[in-house]
Amino acid sequence: MLIIGERINSSRKPIAQAVASGDKAFIQREARMQEEAGADYLDVNAGVFLGEESDRLKWIIETVQEVISIPLCIDSADAQVIAAVLPLVNSPPMINSITLEARSLESTLPLVVKHKAKVIGLCQGQGQLAQSAQIKVELAGRLVEKVTAADISLDDLYIDPLIFPLANDVGSGVAFLQAISRIMKDYPGIHTVCGLTNISYGLPNRKLINRTFLIAAIASGMDSAILDPTDRDLYRLFRTAVMVMGMDDFCMDYIRAYKQGRL
Amino acid sequence: MLIIGERINSSRKPIAQAVASGDKAFIQREARMQEEAGADYLDVNAGVFLGEESDRLKWIIETVQEVISIPLCIDSADAQVIAAVLPLVNSPPMINSITLEARSLESTLPLVVKHKAKVIGLCQGQGQLAQSAQIKVELAGRLVEKVTAADISLDDLYIDPLIFPLANDVGSGVAFLQAISRIMKDYPGIHTVCGLTNISYGLPNRKLINRTFLIAAIASGMDSAILDPTDRDLYRLFRTAVMVMGMDDFCMDYIRAYKQGRL
Repeated sequence: MLIIGERINSSRKPIAQAVASGDKAFIQREARMQEEAGADYLDVNAGVFLGEESDRLKWIIETVQEVISIPLCIDSADAQVIAAVLPLVNSPPMINSITLEARSLESTLPLVVKHKAKVIGLCQGQGQLAQSAQIKVELAGRLVEKVTAADISLDDLYIDPLIFPLANDVGSGVAFLQAISRIMKDYPGIHTVCGLTNISYGLPNRKLINRTFLIAAIASGMDSAILDPTDRDLYRLFRTAVMVMGMDDFCMDYIRAYKQGRL
Repeated sequence: MLIIGERINSSRKPIAQAVASGDKAFIQREARMQEEAGADYLDVNAGVFLGEESDRLKWIIETVQEVISIPLCIDSADAQVIAAVLPLVNSPPMINSITLEARSLESTLPLVVKHKAKVIGLCQGQGQLAQSAQIKVELAGRLVEKVTAADISLDDLYIDPLIFPLANDVGSGVAFLQAISRIMKDYPGIHTVCGLTNISYGLPNRKLINRTFLIAAIASGMDSAILDPTDRDLYRLFRTAVMVMGMDDFCMDYIRAYKQGRL
């Protein structure tokens, strides 16, 4: 079960401000907190800096690599930005993300191979909106084809079936969960992932919804997540869900977390 | 989604004391609290009073029926006790429970028919311990045969696949969840249920585990639960899980609960 720490994302105001002002200490603290809280990868995103995304992301990467030892998850919607920053990473990263757009695939898949990276594949592209479980699974199948044709192992592929807000369609949660369950069954060795927050868009008490959905997703077989590992309530439920799903031998991680006062 | 309020159980010390001393006000308060918190059925159990279980349970039934209008869930392991108290109930009850033991079935199934009751069927009996998902599903299938042969609709059957403690076998949660999912798929119209607390036996912070497991079970398709509806944290997660699973049209119940300050 992988945790990808989501905090260093320029869509969060304090992060954008720290990046804009070159506040290394702030960004490094954000990085260390997440590593200490148990993140396996650290997501880094500079998407709000239009026209200078590459330079800003390079600065973030160099800044965090001074203080942490976990690998990075390079988060950009722009394949050129990903290509530009990859030479800087210290250890094999995760790439967040590819879609089924031809440009995204042609540009990024060779880089995944070259950098021995893992890659997040979004169920998106080819003009289809992945709202139903069926379309999500179909698009996942096409990602699997493209990725395996590029000689990338399924073990390096993290499918994100995309979450749409419950407020627009109350069936969107079930569609996502069914897709997770089907994808994990149809492609042994593959992984699934999501960012949680979209599920609660437009509803009150969003954290409660995000937490509940995380457990439902883990119960459906999702084996990694992009989340804030420093959110203690989320962490408690996550740690417990992993045990409940039988992925904690002799409940040892749970009991250790309890003894450390983290539950 | 049915909630069966679990508080009036003689295995809880304050309940046993109130029953022993004939404290009507206490028991009636426990009944009202649960109805107000949203219980659909009220579980009543006098199992600790060996040799006088029938009389004690009759007293409980008469006491709570003075103040609540929701139906009862008659909770006894003794088929003779169930038979003795059923004539007292005001409205069609739920019977908790039958097993595959011949004596349990022969004695109780005719009463289910006579009282238009719903019935909880435990995956237990015939010398098999329902530890694996496969055995749970097999035993559920035999319960289905027996119940339908007695002309009881599947809509009145609530299968409890039995939870064993994670502390003894960390795979026991997954076995239960897989069984829930299989049973709901194999027998359309049937229901599934469980008491949550066994999952956390022997581990610290039991409430956290019980809550997490409830969400995982709902995500696996379980459509009723025996729980404490007055536990606010449990209620919040329950309400949210029901929405996440698409069973709350336009998220209206969730938003109402939020406006009432219950989330």
